[in-house]
Amino acid sequence: MPLLYSYYRSSCSFRVRIALNLKGIPCEYEYINLHPSVSVQKTDKYREINPQCKVPFFVDGGVSLSQSMAILEYLDEAYPSVPLLPQDALEKARARQICHLIACDVQPLNNIAVLQRLKTQFGCDKSDQDVWYHHWIEEGFSSAEQLVREYSDCAFSCADEPNLVDILLVPQIWNARRFDVDLSAYPRLCEIYDTCLSHQAFIDALPENQKDFVDQ
Amino acid sequence: MPLLYSYYRSSCSFRVRIALNLKGIPCEYEYINLHPSVSVQKTDKYREINPQCKVPFFVDGGVSLSQSMAILEYLDEAYPSVPLLPQDALEKARARQICHLIACDVQPLNNIAVLQRLKTQFGCDKSDQDVWYHHWIEEGFSSAEQLVREYSDCAFSCADEPNLVDILLVPQIWNARRFDVDLSAYPRLCEIYDTCLSHQAFIDALPENQKDFVDQ
Repeated sequence: MPLLYSYYRSSCSFRVRIALNLKGIPCEYEYINLHPSVSVQKTDKYREINPQCKVPFFVDGGVSLSQSMAILEYLDEAYPSVPLLPQDALEKARARQICHLIACDVQPLNNIAVLQRLKTQFGCDKSDQDVWYHHWIEEGFSSAEQLVREYSDCAFSCADEPNLVDILLVPQIWNARRFDVDLSAYPRLCEIYDTCLSHQAFIDALPENQKDFVDQ
Repeated sequence: MPLLYSYYRSSCSFRVRIALNLKGIPCEYEYINLHPSVSVQKTDKYREINPQCKVPFFVDGGVSLSQSMAILEYLDEAYPSVPLLPQDALEKARARQICHLIACDVQPLNNIAVLQRLKTQFGCDKSDQDVWYHHWIEEGFSSAEQLVREYSDCAFSCADEPNLVDILLVPQIWNARRFDVDLSAYPRLCEIYDTCLSHQAFIDALPENQKDFVDQ
């Protein structure tokens, strides 16, 4: 059975959990606590498992992969029965465009390691971090809102079934809500979020429904 | 003929230029000056072309795409004759893992917009920016060096022909050299860089060989 190293609040782990659920792939979980007070990902024990010292980390037979986007693309090729990307080349490219907008322009700037670095290098406090966090969410979500509005006839972000775009959007919106970002300028993103969170694959992947969840 | 909106020093534009050259796709170029003193990407004229106000932006018949990773994956599907990814599913996933390590964990933290934001939000000077820049390069390159060493029998990063991994690595290494990062801890990355820069597709894509190059 595949094994996923995950942390409940890691939005990249959240992405992979949704994909596994959508595809109905049974999977074991190991929980790696990324909280800066513990940082289990930096222990020698975990470094031996994943030298990149990050989650998600996915092991499936001979495959050991870091990087959520690589894991998601791999899952879609290795378990094709519930496709995560449109078949049409143009639509597939447009879907990947939205995915990478989140994966490259938003999430990397707002993850735990970066917020910690702002603190250690510049002495930023919570309020500085929040301004930084909100800025990149607003930049990225403005573009994402515009792109998904082109598909507002669809039930999900760009199709009538959930796909990779929803897998990228939902964890990032969940995260933005945790940081109290005002999302009223992004009504279509909010609508997609609500639709996804009525779907069991997304519900089961929520941070608060993980075994390692801590209410903090 | 396809059209690429590019900026000579944008490492994401550099990626797409290499791919177009490797695949021998004839392409027109429009140059968008991202230098903070000009910021052509923020003009109304460019916003009408690409509402995301970024480069690269690629137009090919009915396809208009932002996000270099989406453009690269699209090019590989639409112009398959010179493949950019291994055929084997496991090797493809391992290649994408290295690509996303650069595309998600390194480049987004060190691009012009982020360095500018450090200046406007925290008043960072050039030396603060350099410390920040070097930190993320070192984090990412340590992992990348480890991953590409598994393929040290290959002429290029993970195959005997250049592929998507080289397309991601070369612009990031070029950029790191521009910021005077000491690369002596990454001998395999440096070897790959030198090999790639003896290949015409990479040479022609270099910032200094673009029509909009400015020596600054």
